[in-house]
Amino acid sequence: MYLHTQQFINEIAVDEPDPAAANALQEGLGGQFGEMRTMMQYLFQSMNFRGDPTSKPYKDLLQGVGTEEISHVELIGTTISRLLDGSPDYNGKKTDPVDQPGANGATPLKIALDHSNIHHYLVGAQGAMPVDAAGNPWLGSYVYNSGNLVLDLLYNLMLESTGRLQKCRIYEMTDNKTARSTISYLIVRDQAHENAFAKALESLGVNWGAVLPIPKTSAEQFPEVKNLLDKGLQSIQYTFSADDQSQAAKLYRGASPSNDGTELSTAVMPEGFPMTIAPERREEFAPGLDKELLALIQATAEVEIASNEK
Amino acid sequence: MYLHTQQFINEIAVDEPDPAAANALQEGLGGQFGEMRTMMQYLFQSMNFRGDPTSKPYKDLLQGVGTEEISHVELIGTTISRLLDGSPDYNGKKTDPVDQPGANGATPLKIALDHSNIHHYLVGAQGAMPVDAAGNPWLGSYVYNSGNLVLDLLYNLMLESTGRLQKCRIYEMTDNKTARSTISYLIVRDQAHENAFAKALESLGVNWGAVLPIPKTSAEQFPEVKNLLDKGLQSIQYTFSADDQSQAAKLYRGASPSNDGTELSTAVMPEGFPMTIAPERREEFAPGLDKELLALIQATAEVEIASNEK
Amino acid sequence: MYLHTQQFINEIAVDEPDPAAANALQEGLGGQFGEMRTMMQYLFQSMNFRGDPTSKPYKDLLQGVGTEEISHVELIGTTISRLLDGSPDYNGKKTDPVDQPGANGATPLKIALDHSNIHHYLVGAQGAMPVDAAGNPWLGSYVYNSGNLVLDLLYNLMLESTGRLQKCRIYEMTDNKTARSTISYLIVRDQAHENAFAKALESLGVNWGAVLPIPKTSAEQFPEVKNLLDKGLQSIQYTFSADDQSQAAKLYRGASPSNDGTELSTAVMPEGFPMTIAPERREEFAPGLDKELLALIQATAEVEIASNEK
Amino acid sequence: MYLHTQQFINEIAVDEPDPAAANALQEGLGGQFGEMRTMMQYLFQSMNFRGDPTSKPYKDLLQGVGTEEISHVELIGTTISRLLDGSPDYNGKKTDPVDQPGANGATPLKIALDHSNIHHYLVGAQGAMPVDAAGNPWLGSYVYNSGNLVLDLLYNLMLESTGRLQKCRIYEMTDNKTARSTISYLIVRDQAHENAFAKALESLGVNWGAVLPIPKTSAEQFPEVKNLLDKGLQSIQYTFSADDQSQAAKLYRGASPSNDGTELSTAVMPEGFPMTIAPERREEFAPGLDKELLALIQATAEVEIASNEK
Amino acid sequence: MYLHTQQFINEIAVDEPDPAAANALQEGLGGQFGEMRTMMQYLFQSMNFRGDPTSKPYKDLLQGVGTEEISHVELIGTTISRLLDGSPDYNGKKTDPVDQPGANGATPLKIALDHSNIHHYLVGAQGAMPVDAAGNPWLGSYVYNSGNLVLDLLYNLMLESTGRLQKCRIYEMTDNKTARSTISYLIVRDQAHENAFAKALESLGVNWGAVLPIPKTSAEQFPEVKNLLDKGLQSIQYTFSADDQSQAAKLYRGASPSNDGTELSTAVMPEGFPMTIAPERREEFAPGLDKELLALIQATAEVEIASNEK
Amino acid sequence: MYLHTQQFINEIAVDEPDPAAANALQEGLGGQFGEMRTMMQYLFQSMNFRGDPTSKPYKDLLQGVGTEEISHVELIGTTISRLLDGSPDYNGKKTDPVDQPGANGATPLKIALDHSNIHHYLVGAQGAMPVDAAGNPWLGSYVYNSGNLVLDLLYNLMLESTGRLQKCRIYEMTDNKTARSTISYLIVRDQAHENAFAKALESLGVNWGAVLPIPKTSAEQFPEVKNLLDKGLQSIQYTFSADDQSQAAKLYRGASPSNDGTELSTAVMPEGFPMTIAPERREEFAPGLDKELLALIQATAEVEIASNEK
Repeated sequence: MYLHTQQFINEIAVDEPDPAAANALQEGLGGQFGEMRTMMQYLFQSMNFRGDPTSKPYKDLLQGVGTEEISHVELIGTTISRLLDGSPDYNGKKTDPVDQPGANGATPLKIALDHSNIHHYLVGAQGAMPVDAAGNPWLGSYVYNSGNLVLDLLYNLMLESTGRLQKCRIYEMTDNKTARSTISYLIVRDQAHENAFAKALESLGVNWGAVLPIPKTSAEQFPEVKNLLDKGLQSIQYTFSADDQSQAAKLYRGASPSNDGTELSTAVMPEGFPMTIAPERREEFAPGLDKELLALIQATAEVEIASNEK
Repeated sequence: MYLHTQQFINEIAVDEPDPAAANALQEGLGGQFGEMRTMMQYLFQSMNFRGDPTSKPYKDLLQGVGTEEISHVELIGTTISRLLDGSPDYNGKKTDPVDQPGANGATPLKIALDHSNIHHYLVGAQGAMPVDAAGNPWLGSYVYNSGNLVLDLLYNLMLESTGRLQKCRIYEMTDNKTARSTISYLIVRDQAHENAFAKALESLGVNWGAVLPIPKTSAEQFPEVKNLLDKGLQSIQYTFSADDQSQAAKLYRGASPSNDGTELSTAVMPEGFPMTIAPERREEFAPGLDKELLALIQATAEVEIASNEK
Repeated sequence: MYLHTQQFINEIAVDEPDPAAANALQEGLGGQFGEMRTMMQYLFQSMNFRGDPTSKPYKDLLQGVGTEEISHVELIGTTISRLLDGSPDYNGKKTDPVDQPGANGATPLKIALDHSNIHHYLVGAQGAMPVDAAGNPWLGSYVYNSGNLVLDLLYNLMLESTGRLQKCRIYEMTDNKTARSTISYLIVRDQAHENAFAKALESLGVNWGAVLPIPKTSAEQFPEVKNLLDKGLQSIQYTFSADDQSQAAKLYRGASPSNDGTELSTAVMPEGFPMTIAPERREEFAPGLDKELLALIQATAEVEIASNEK
Repeated sequence: MYLHTQQFINEIAVDEPDPAAANALQEGLGGQFGEMRTMMQYLFQSMNFRGDPTSKPYKDLLQGVGTEEISHVELIGTTISRLLDGSPDYNGKKTDPVDQPGANGATPLKIALDHSNIHHYLVGAQGAMPVDAAGNPWLGSYVYNSGNLVLDLLYNLMLESTGRLQKCRIYEMTDNKTARSTISYLIVRDQAHENAFAKALESLGVNWGAVLPIPKTSAEQFPEVKNLLDKGLQSIQYTFSADDQSQAAKLYRGASPSNDGTELSTAVMPEGFPMTIAPERREEFAPGLDKELLALIQATAEVEIASNEK
Repeated sequence: MYLHTQQFINEIAVDEPDPAAANALQEGLGGQFGEMRTMMQYLFQSMNFRGDPTSKPYKDLLQGVGTEEISHVELIGTTISRLLDGSPDYNGKKTDPVDQPGANGATPLKIALDHSNIHHYLVGAQGAMPVDAAGNPWLGSYVYNSGNLVLDLLYNLMLESTGRLQKCRIYEMTDNKTARSTISYLIVRDQAHENAFAKALESLGVNWGAVLPIPKTSAEQFPEVKNLLDKGLQSIQYTFSADDQSQAAKLYRGASPSNDGTELSTAVMPEGFPMTIAPERREEFAPGLDKELLALIQATAEVEIASNEK
Repeated sequence: MYLHTQQFINEIAVDEPDPAAANALQEGLGGQFGEMRTMMQYLFQSMNFRGDPTSKPYKDLLQGVGTEEISHVELIGTTISRLLDGSPDYNGKKTDPVDQPGANGATPLKIALDHSNIHHYLVGAQGAMPVDAAGNPWLGSYVYNSGNLVLDLLYNLMLESTGRLQKCRIYEMTDNKTARSTISYLIVRDQAHENAFAKALESLGVNWGAVLPIPKTSAEQFPEVKNLLDKGLQSIQYTFSADDQSQAAKLYRGASPSNDGTELSTAVMPEGFPMTIAPERREEFAPGLDKELLALIQATAEVEIASNEK
C-alpha cells in the first residue's frame, strides 16, 4: 500500500518557461529509459519477486528504489509543466495577447506550430505527457522482469546507467535553471541507483573494477551536479518504508562501487519541498470554468467539515 | 513524495492456480481501462492541475484516488502472480515433473503452448505483466488529461464505470476464489471512485438522476460483492495523505450519487494485509541461483546492521 | 458528402453462433488487408487525387470502390456480431445459465477464457471490433497513398488480390453459413475490384496475360462463390453516386481482365437487405438498462414528431 | 449501405498554403479525438447496437452522426491537402524552381526538412494522411464501444467535447482562412453533436445544469464561429438517411442542453459545395504521367458510353 | 558488404509438424530478445561504432556476432516454417482433405481457428513471420545502441543471457525434434555470445565471479544441449569475415568467463548444411500457379545461360 | 549462412554534416519502404519460399536482392551517421565548445532541441537509428509474404518503385553531397530491383508496356543519378552468392522492362569501398572511456595472436 505527502522530493528552481527544454525532459519522464519505466519495472520486479525468505533484502531494495521513482515521476512531470506553463509568450514573442482568449480572432497559441511537441498545447494544456522527447507514447513492453535475479539486477544497472547517460546529454542541451535543477538531481540519484544494483551484484560475487559510474563525468563539467555530489546524495538510498520493514540496508552498505571513496548508507526518506497549484490558462480552456461554475467551486472550498479523516 | 507499507490493500483468497483466470485479470491490470491506466491518468491530472487555490479539493481528490490506484496495481498484479504460480501442474496435468528441471529432457512448461498468454511462462516467470488480456502492451496514449476540469471529471467517471463493467464481466468468467476476491473488491472500489467523480460533477451542478452506478447490478448476482457493499466500502474514500493535507473530504461527502441511501465519507487509509515472498520456480530459472550464489545471498541476509534507517 | 440507407449490401445467412469463425472474420474487417483498410485507402486516394481534369474517371473509380467498402465494413462487422451474439451457450455448453446474470455467482461468460479473442466478451459486448484476427488494432500506417497514379493502382490491385486470398483461406477454415455467406460475397466483390484496378492499368498500357484473378480458384472448390459468379457479380461495379456524377464507367467496361469471358459494366447500387436490432445480452450489461431507464426510453420511442426530416 | 454525392458538406475558403496549419489540422483528422475516430466509433456503436426495438431512436442517432463524420473526414482531409498543395514555395521561399523537377539538381522540396511533418512531402504528395499532429498513425484501439448504452453515450459526449476543445485550440494557432473555415465549421458541428449525446442522456434522466457546452466560449472570441452560431448550425442534426427511416428526431428535439435558448431540430442533409480535382505536382511525381501515359488517359476520358449507370 | 551461401548454419532435425511449437519458436525469431533483435542491434552498434583505431577488435566482435545472427534468423525462420508446413493434418486430424482445395466446400484449414497464431495460415502460408510468440510485430525501438561502449557491452551480455533463458524455457515446452534441434543449438550459441560480451567487459576490468553463464543449467537437464557443449560449441566464435580483416580474436581468447574450463578461440565460419525448397501447399494458394503459369516457369528453368556470374 | 566483407557497396562522398538531411535519409533506412524493410521482406520470402524445384530461380532472385539490401542498410546507415557526426557545430553554430564536455556547464548539444530528430543526440550518439523520418520505429508488420508467388512479386515491384519514388523526393530536399551520393546510388539500384521483379512477372506473361520505371525521371533532372545510369548500374543484378549456386540469371536476362534499350545481366558482387571507424564524441560519452579504460583497450589491441582464424 502507498501513501502520499504533498511535498516534492527536490526543489524546482525558478526560471523562464522553455518549451524546447520541456520537450527534452519528456525523455526523462516517458522515454524508454525514463522515470515511468524505472518505476514500473521495479514495482513489477518487486511484485513478482521469487526466492527464499533470505532474499528479502533484494526485494526490499527493488521496492524502495521503485517507490522513489514514483516521486521522480512527480518531480520531472511537474518540472515539464513549469517549463511549458505560460510559454506561449516566452522569449519576447508577444504579438498576440496571451491568456486573453476573448481577443477578437487572435492566435495566442501560434507558438505551438513550430516549437517542440504541438501536443503540449493541443492535447494537453501546457502540461507533461506520458511520451518521450520524440513524441512516442510510453509502452508496457519496456518493462523487463525475467524473474532471474542476476539478469534483473544486470538489466537494472544498465537501465539506471542509460538513464544517467541520457540526462547528462539533456544537461548539455539547455542551461535553463528550472530544467537543470531537476536534471542534475536525477543524474545524482541515478548514480545512487547504479550503486544499489552494482552492490547487489557485488553481493553475488561480481567485481566491477573501474567501469562505474557510467557515464564517466568530472565535477568541473556539471557544476549543479557537483553541488549535490558534495552533499553525498549519490551514496544514500531511501527505503520510503512507512512501516520500517525494509531490509535494503543489508545490501546498500560498505564502499561505493563508484570508487569515489564514499560509504553507502540508507535512510527512510529525505526532507521535502512545498507544492503549489498551477494558475489558470484561459487560452487552453484549463480549467475552463465560467463565472457560474467558479461560484460553485468556491462554495465547495468553503465547506466546513468535521475532520473525518482522522 | 510517496511512501510504501508492506501490506496489501485487501486480502487475496487462497485457491488453485488458474492461468486462464490470470490472463483475464490482466485486463484489469494492463488494459485500456485497468489499474495502471487509472493510476497514471490521475497522477498526471493531479500533477498538471490548474486553477484557483479554491480548487484544491479537486486536485486532492485526484491525488488520493490516484495513490489508491498504485495499491490496486500492487493488489491485482500479485493476484495474477498467484494464479500463475505453480500453474504448470494445475488441473491434474502432471505428466512431467514440475519444478525439477534436472529431469532428463522433460517438458514441465508444456502448458504454456495452449493456455492463455504464453508470455506468462516464456517472458515472465509465472508472474504479472503490463499487458491486457489480449496481450497488448500498456500504452501511454491511454492517459487522458485535457486540462479542462469538467472534461477530465467526465472522462474519469466514464473510466471508472468502464473498469467496473469489465470487472463484472471478468467475475462472470471464473469462480476461482483467488481471482474473485480481488475482482469483487475492485468492483466495489470502482464504485467508490464513480461516486467521487460523479459527486465532483454534482458540485458543478450536474444531477445524475438514476443512471448510477454503471453498470446496474443486483446484490443477488455477485455474492462476494454484496459482502463488501454491506460493509459500505463503496461509499468511503481514502486520502492516503501521509501529512493529512488533503481537502478531498470537502467533495466526498453527503448523499451517494449511487442512490443507495448511504452517505459518503473519507478516511486516511484502510487496514492492510500481510505480504509474503513467492517461492522459487526452478523450471523458470527464477530466481535461478545455484548453491554458490545462494550461499552468498545468505551471507547478505545475516548481516547485522546498526539500524541506520531510523 | 455521404448518405446512408438502412439496408445491408448482401444478405447474412442464419446459422449457429461461432466465436472462432467470428474471430477469423476480424481479419477481413480490421486486418491489414481488410475492409477498413480498403475503405480508408480509397477515400484518402480520392480525397488527395491529383491530375488533369481528364483523369476524373480514375478519381471516380476510387471514390466508388471506396464508398462500397464502407458498406462492406457494415456487412462484415454485422456478420461478426451475429457470430458472437449468444455464443456463450453455443455448442451445447450450457452448464451455466446464460443471459441471466442474476443467478447466484454463476459464470455465464466462462467461454471467453478459452475461445478466440477474449476482448469480444470483455471489452466489447459480443460485437465486432476494429482489430485483426490476431487481436492487433487497425493502424493508420496501413493506408497507402503515394500520389503516383500508376503506383496507387498497382498497390490497389495487390491489395484487393491479397484480401481475396485471405478470404479464400478463411472460407477453408469454417463452414458456418453465416460466416460463409459474407465471405463468399466479399471474395466475389474483391474480384470485381481486382478487375477495376487491373482495367485502369490496362488503360495505361499494361497487359496482364493470364495472371488474373489472384488467387486462381475453380468453381467446384467454393460452391457458395460459384453461385455468385454465375450471377456475374464479379464483373459489375457500383458507383454509389447519389448525384450520378461518376465517370467510372469510362474505365470499368470491355472484356474482363480475369479472362472469364464476361464484359464489365457499371450500375449505381445493388438492391439491399433489411436490418434489425440485436437483442439485449444481460450478462454483458448491454444495453444495461434497469426498469426505470427502460421506462424512460419507451417514453422517447412514443414521441410523436411532426416529421421535420422532410 | 452508403451513397456518395460529389459535394463538400461545407465550403473551404481560399488562402495561401500553410504546411504548419495543415499539420495542426491533422489532429482533427487522424488524432485520438479527430473525425476518423468519431466516424469509426459511431459506425461500430450503431453496427453492434443492442436493445429493445423501442431503442431504435438511439441507434439511428448514432448512425446519423456517424454518417456525418465520414463527410467531415472528407472535408478536413481536403482542407489539409489544400493547405499543403503548392506549399514548397509558400511564404516567399522561391530560391529553387518548384514544380519543375527537370531543373538540374535543384531542391524544390527542401521545405520538407524543417516544416511540420516531413511525411507530407516524402510519403504523401502534399496531401492529408491518417495520422495526428505529432505524426502518430490512427489506432483501432481508440474506438470505444462497451455496449452499455449509458456508458457509450457518456463517452461520446466527452469525445465530442474534447474534439471541440482541441479545435478551439487549433483556431488559436493559425489565422489562415482555409484552415479557419473548416475548423470553425467543425467547432459548431461538434457542439451539435454534444447536444445530441447530452440530450440522449437527458432522456435517461440526467440534468446537465450549466456545464454545457464544453469548452465555454464567447462569441467575440471566435468571429468565424459566431457567424455559424447565428445561423443556428449548432442546434440542427442531419440524419443523412437516404430512405428516411431514421427516428433520430425523437431524441434530437426540445430545448438545447447548451442553454443558448435554441430548440433542437433535424433535417436529412445540408446543401453541399462543389468539388474540384487538385493540380499535378511534378516535383512529387504525382500523378507522375509522361506524355505517352497522358495520351492514354485522354483516350479513356473521351470514351462515349451508353450510360449504363442509369 | 554481405555474401550468402546456400547452406544452413546447423542441421534441422526431421519430425512431425507442430504449430504450437512453431509459435513458441516465434519468440526466438521475432521476440524482443530474439534473433532479429540481436542481429539488428549488433549491426547498428557496429555501423555507428566510435573510438580510437585501437578499439577495432570491439567493432569487429560486434560485426562478427551480428553477421552470425543473420544466419540464426535464417535457421530459426526455416525451422518454424518446417514446423508449420503440412500442419493442418498433423496429429491425426484428417477429417478434411488437405492440399486438395478442389474438394467441394471442404475446410482443410480449420486447424487455424484454435491453434497458436491464426496468422500462420491466414496471412502467411504456413511460414515464419516477424512477430513474437504472442503475435506482437517486431519493433525498431527494441534496438539498443547508446554509443557508450561499456553500456552497449553490458546490454549485449544481458540480451544474450535473456535470449538463452527464453530458449531454455522453450526447450521445456516441447520435445518435438525439429524444434529442439534448433533451440538447443541456439542455447549453446547464445552462451558463446555471452562469453564474447563478458570477455570484452573483462578486458575493461570487470570480474564476473561465478554468475555466468545465465541461466545456470546442468548437462543432465538438456541432453541435446549437452551434445553440443561436449563439442565445445559454446567456446568458439566465428568471424564470418570473407576478407579475413576481423580482429575479434584479440578479444575472444583465454579462459572462458563461463568457468567451464574451456579456452575461447575463433574461426571464420562453421561447415554448413544443405537447403531445400518447401513443397507447394494448394490449400494456401502458395505458390498458387495454375497449369498455364507452371508451364511458363518451367520454360524459365530450362534457360541455358552462359554463366555470366563468373 | 552469411559472410561479411569490410567494404561498402558504394562510396560515400565527403561533405559537411547535415542533421536535417540525415533525418530525411532515415526514411530510406527505417521507413515503411526503406532498406530494412526490403531486406527483411525478401529474406522472409526466400526463407518461406514454396514450389516445384523448377522455381528455384525465383527463390534465388529473392535471396540475391535480399542479401544486397543488407549491404544497403549498412550503406545508408553509415551515411546517416556521417551526416550526424560532428553536427553540433555545423553551419557555423559554435557558441559553445563542442567535444569538450569539461567546459563549465556548457551546452554543446543544444542543437538537438530544434533540429530534426532529438533522439539522434539523446538516445543515439550522433548515429543512425531504426526509425523513419517522422521518428516511427520500424515495424515487423511491414513485411509482406503472402506465399502466393504472383502477389509477392507484384508487391515487391510496387515496393521497389515506392522506395525509388521516396528517394527521388529526398534527392529534391537536399544537395548535401554525402546524402546525394548514397541516395543517387539507391535510386539506380531500386530501378535494378524494379527490373528484377518486373522481369519475373514478365516470365509469367505480364507485359508492362510503357509504365516502367516508376517514377518516370529524366536524366537532366538528377545529374548524380545520370552518371550511374551511364554505367549501366540499373541493369545488372548481383547474386552475392558465395558458393555460386544462384540461378537468378535465368530470370535476370534479356531486354530491360524499363525500356531504356539495355540488356539485363548478373554478376556475383561489385567492387567495394573501404571502411573506417568514426571518431570519439566526448559530448556524447561515446565511447565514454576514461584514461584507465583506454589503457586497457590498448593492451587488448596489442595482443599478438597465433592467427587462429585461418
